[in-house]
Amino acid sequence: MIGQSGIAVRNVRRALPESVAELAKYGVATVHEAMGRTGLMASYMRPVYPGARICGTAVTIFAHPGDNWMLHVAAEMLQPGDVAVLGTSSQNTDGMFGDLLATSFHARGAVGLVTDAGCRDAAELRTMGFPVWSKAVHAKGTVKATVGSVNTPILCAGMLVYPGDVVIADDDGVVIVPKLQATRVAAAAAAREVKEAGNRKRFAAGELGLDVYGMRDSLTKAGLEYFADEDALQLESQK
Amino acid sequence: MIGQSGIAVRNVRRALPESVAELAKYGVATVHEAMGRTGLMASYMRPVYPGARICGTAVTIFAHPGDNWMLHVAAEMLQPGDVAVLGTSSQNTDGMFGDLLATSFHARGAVGLVTDAGCRDAAELRTMGFPVWSKAVHAKGTVKATVGSVNTPILCAGMLVYPGDVVIADDDGVVIVPKLQATRVAAAAAAREVKEAGNRKRFAAGELGLDVYGMRDSLTKAGLEYFADEDALQLESQK
Amino acid sequence: MIGQSGIAVRNVRRALPESVAELAKYGVATVHEAMGRTGLMASYMRPVYPGARICGTAVTIFAHPGDNWMLHVAAEMLQPGDVAVLGTSSQNTDGMFGDLLATSFHARGAVGLVTDAGCRDAAELRTMGFPVWSKAVHAKGTVKATVGSVNTPILCAGMLVYPGDVVIADDDGVVIVPKLQATRVAAAAAAREVKEAGNRKRFAAGELGLDVYGMRDSLTKAGLEYFADEDALQLESQK
Amino acid sequence: MIGQSGIAVRNVRRALPESVAELAKYGVATVHEAMGRTGLMASYMRPVYPGARICGTAVTIFAHPGDNWMLHVAAEMLQPGDVAVLGTSSQNTDGMFGDLLATSFHARGAVGLVTDAGCRDAAELRTMGFPVWSKAVHAKGTVKATVGSVNTPILCAGMLVYPGDVVIADDDGVVIVPKLQATRVAAAAAAREVKEAGNRKRFAAGELGLDVYGMRDSLTKAGLEYFADEDALQLESQK
Amino acid sequence: MIGQSGIAVRNVRRALPESVAELAKYGVATVHEAMGRTGLMASYMRPVYPGARICGTAVTIFAHPGDNWMLHVAAEMLQPGDVAVLGTSSQNTDGMFGDLLATSFHARGAVGLVTDAGCRDAAELRTMGFPVWSKAVHAKGTVKATVGSVNTPILCAGMLVYPGDVVIADDDGVVIVPKLQATRVAAAAAAREVKEAGNRKRFAAGELGLDVYGMRDSLTKAGLEYFADEDALQLESQK
Amino acid sequence: MIGQSGIAVRNVRRALPESVAELAKYGVATVHEAMGRTGLMASYMRPVYPGARICGTAVTIFAHPGDNWMLHVAAEMLQPGDVAVLGTSSQNTDGMFGDLLATSFHARGAVGLVTDAGCRDAAELRTMGFPVWSKAVHAKGTVKATVGSVNTPILCAGMLVYPGDVVIADDDGVVIVPKLQATRVAAAAAAREVKEAGNRKRFAAGELGLDVYGMRDSLTKAGLEYFADEDALQLESQK
Repeated sequence: MIGQSGIAVRNVRRALPESVAELAKYGVATVHEAMGRTGLMASYMRPVYPGARICGTAVTIFAHPGDNWMLHVAAEMLQPGDVAVLGTSSQNTDGMFGDLLATSFHARGAVGLVTDAGCRDAAELRTMGFPVWSKAVHAKGTVKATVGSVNTPILCAGMLVYPGDVVIADDDGVVIVPKLQATRVAAAAAAREVKEAGNRKRFAAGELGLDVYGMRDSLTKAGLEYFADEDALQLESQK
Repeated sequence: MIGQSGIAVRNVRRALPESVAELAKYGVATVHEAMGRTGLMASYMRPVYPGARICGTAVTIFAHPGDNWMLHVAAEMLQPGDVAVLGTSSQNTDGMFGDLLATSFHARGAVGLVTDAGCRDAAELRTMGFPVWSKAVHAKGTVKATVGSVNTPILCAGMLVYPGDVVIADDDGVVIVPKLQATRVAAAAAAREVKEAGNRKRFAAGELGLDVYGMRDSLTKAGLEYFADEDALQLESQK
Repeated sequence: MIGQSGIAVRNVRRALPESVAELAKYGVATVHEAMGRTGLMASYMRPVYPGARICGTAVTIFAHPGDNWMLHVAAEMLQPGDVAVLGTSSQNTDGMFGDLLATSFHARGAVGLVTDAGCRDAAELRTMGFPVWSKAVHAKGTVKATVGSVNTPILCAGMLVYPGDVVIADDDGVVIVPKLQATRVAAAAAAREVKEAGNRKRFAAGELGLDVYGMRDSLTKAGLEYFADEDALQLESQK
Repeated sequence: MIGQSGIAVRNVRRALPESVAELAKYGVATVHEAMGRTGLMASYMRPVYPGARICGTAVTIFAHPGDNWMLHVAAEMLQPGDVAVLGTSSQNTDGMFGDLLATSFHARGAVGLVTDAGCRDAAELRTMGFPVWSKAVHAKGTVKATVGSVNTPILCAGMLVYPGDVVIADDDGVVIVPKLQATRVAAAAAAREVKEAGNRKRFAAGELGLDVYGMRDSLTKAGLEYFADEDALQLESQK
Repeated sequence: MIGQSGIAVRNVRRALPESVAELAKYGVATVHEAMGRTGLMASYMRPVYPGARICGTAVTIFAHPGDNWMLHVAAEMLQPGDVAVLGTSSQNTDGMFGDLLATSFHARGAVGLVTDAGCRDAAELRTMGFPVWSKAVHAKGTVKATVGSVNTPILCAGMLVYPGDVVIADDDGVVIVPKLQATRVAAAAAAREVKEAGNRKRFAAGELGLDVYGMRDSLTKAGLEYFADEDALQLESQK
Repeated sequence: MIGQSGIAVRNVRRALPESVAELAKYGVATVHEAMGRTGLMASYMRPVYPGARICGTAVTIFAHPGDNWMLHVAAEMLQPGDVAVLGTSSQNTDGMFGDLLATSFHARGAVGLVTDAGCRDAAELRTMGFPVWSKAVHAKGTVKATVGSVNTPILCAGMLVYPGDVVIADDDGVVIVPKLQATRVAAAAAAREVKEAGNRKRFAAGELGLDVYGMRDSLTKAGLEYFADEDALQLESQK
């Protein structure tokens, strides 16, 4: 059950490495579109430094506010290429993750952390190149008193995450690809990228979206009316 | 009427180019002060990358939450030096604007976008040098289903914007100069800059604002009382 | 009394220079932990540019919303190594502090400003290297009409600050060390740093926090149960 | 100019009394719809007690944060049936309005206050039956130090308000009807009410909106697909 | 897939009526505790009028911001005792639900609505006795332009909801009981209620939780130290 | 030290009963003004039901997010007429207090709770008549794992509270009167009430604040200019 405490699962099925590698080529916006505009975490999730970008498989963590005990339990489950994803049982901005845990996670091969709470040691994380996406950056320390869970399904920043799902994060936020759909989504993202590349060229050459996407008729049908200038609009509204 | 949908005005009177060029020399804070401390959008409007700075004439866009159709309509109205300004019919943080539209707007000569919603492709916008001021950065995709308006008066981040008004944006936020006042405000900004330059030198030399602005008497009249130290304050409060 | 207006105290007892110098070696998170996890301002306090870092003694300022008069009064009390700390009588995000005051404060030897309101001229502050921690960056100008106080105890961003207390601020936020505890806290921070350095090495070598901190037994006692994999968990929950 | 201080206009053209009387029959939602879904203030504007409902003509007030001086200036301009509408030069939640001003405004014939800041004496306002719509209820007192304006156009809670406009407020928020459109909007509201009354009967009888509004075809065209049950959906997604 | 548009499922398996009836006896806090402190929606979900209380089975709705089309599709799926639960594809506070839809839903036998957006016609909903839990009350009207889904799994206010799950809502918020666990949770809630009733009597008689729950030893072990009075504490801290 | 854990002080000096009784006659706004506009908690502190009103002496509680253990420790220190005041070590909205603790506190003679976190069992609290002022109402349950402190100075909702201080709370928020100033503040509140009663009569009779407070001259000096009507203003601005 989501939100259940006291469970630590050692081994989980992860998305296929080749799908993860393929998804790593695309940004969050592209993958989100390729999934039919689904999978995004809330807009408050920000990278601790700009330009950070990761793609990996989720080790999920469920923790209580102000308590980072389960992050140590999760460290043991991390494999190279993993992303730790932390959801909490209630809203919290404490600095649950800092440079010591980052050193540990990095040594285990993890590539980043996504947390619906806060992180700290922002300068050190930037120097180490271990990126974090979080709701806050705050030095607030935490206790180790109450158990949560590791590698159970969690809710994080308004999104459902299963262990082994693909996590992609960049300056635009965080998107989750369910592990069984990773291959299909990677293909859709590739197709979208090709199509967008073509459109980008046309836009760069000065063509309008109105023509590239053929929108003029549908805009008229939807009721859009053009006026030559403000005087023409004025005249119309006085009729 | 503000908030009316279904109108697209092709040509609008813009502020005089020479006034825009003059205003481009000053930052948002200076222009805001030169207008008698008016014209600012809300404090949540942030540049998508630090150090961005623009000055141009507004093409206004009114759109519905999660619907970026009108941005394509607006592209056709953009002229070199314009800034697209997007207000929405209700609070929204979706990524209504990304690198494809930026490529299109840039090709039309626009210099930036100001939006009371979200934008995406933040890394690409930084690379392109096409700055956006927005309420959020979020990958959330949008539909093209409902018409709004282009080049009608809008409300954006708590400010009223008419098409053709001057838009100045930097790290301190966004300020709008009504087009008919652009010349007057540019002159006032220039005068303020001169005066501030003089004061800045005096401050740098260690002079106090108390003396530069002659505030000592008015502070006393307003009731400020000086104490030599904490003990003197203690004594006074025990009387 | 906290929140009383009309008082300006010229000389205050500051923390000992050698304690301030010692505390300057540590980050906000370390000092906060060394104080038994106390002393932090709220998580919304952010540096105006990343990487900023200061340690100094507080000159406290109490001001009214939208009124920056007392900052000029405070300028006269600033001594080399001071940090101006501004609390307001109600919630406010106006740009109470900008490049002119920064020039003045810098000329007096101050090393930064902490404010529970807004600041402006962010680009200039970055260029000058005069950092500010604030709730907002906004160009909004202020009046000089109502007196507050300087060098009385204040509440700022949820924390109590006495004049002369040590203020440490970096990317992780702002922490206040009461002046009488500066020496003791500096020693505790040094001890913590030593201990953490040892642990950091062990983490970097791949050791787990579970073993470094000896947590395995206490986790079991607290009810954490391990499962080999998702199938084992499934079986258990069907019993 | 919006946001200009130092102006007090004694007499303003108000919407016609008969239009105000007609608009008073309808709720905020109906009037907002009758205006083509325009005119609403932000969703944070809440009545100080539930069930409050007013309709009147605006006397506009522009004030600075934490300064309620202009409310006294406005009192003199209030006529029977007026609603005071207060916008501020920056975000503020101070209790700018309480039972003394309510007594004064009530004595002048005003029927309520709308403010983008805070109010206080909530219990007394409820007892008096003088409703306020505000962003906050807070006892925070204010100064009388800086002039703003009365009866100039203002921005309040994201909406533009001219003196003399019609203000309608109830549990659903606050809507502004421009004075020149009051008659037309009142007629549109009446028409809408008639149409809705008919639909309400059909809904109460168990008819579906799908049939009342004839939506089935357009839903299919827009891509909605029906499945008999979860098993059918499962089958489809496995194809 | 969560967040997929274009699907409407006519028939869903609902929790057993007898479990729903049993759960209806308990408040949100009790049921949440009986589920091991899980299942709660976010704290911003508030009833449109105080004292409202419902328990029923979920018909789930997924909609786009500012678009209430799918609510009409959902009306057809509602059965007596159902609760409509609306999640949106991005953050939104528009008034997606009002008295007309309430009339329709009520005629179908539904007992309430839970929405991660806004509702309107608050006064009418109170009069009708059709309660809504929402993020906002706002008159903002919506369009009917883009399809979402009905009776697919949704995320709403940070919680995962499957069609047919039990929804319990009162002044303390909203809790979701997965349909397969309804019977077990109802039993646990009953057991908890019995135990709490006993404790309540002891508390009412003046007994302390310290003794009722036998906490004195564990508090001492956890490091709590008692002092007779402030002077004793003072002495201790000076040692 | 503020924020220190592990301390429980059994007996504290409370404000004098006669001062508390006198202060109980006045509302939060009056007492706040009588203290020179100081002492208020943040504007987000709201009563769990409207019309609640208390005045008593503070038993202070410092707790960790999501942990209500110390409330049970505090119960033993409560005396008739006390108000429990709970500050937390970081931002939290969990339902730390509900009907069982309210039963216990009520049995001890306490008259209410003020908390910078959440409370639950809102309906039962209303029925019992045991009011709570809080940041949130939420069913979220808490653990009992980490000790905080009782009867040490705390920060709560932006205000400093010492054990024994007077706490006054009503619909306008919460104000704290330092125990040593209770007598003086009660006298100032009484004086203010008398003065306001006189002014209230004059306002009710239609007199203006401009005349009651003699503001006309100072407004003119501050730069306020009157215009007969909008046309006169128009003329002036065109000069």
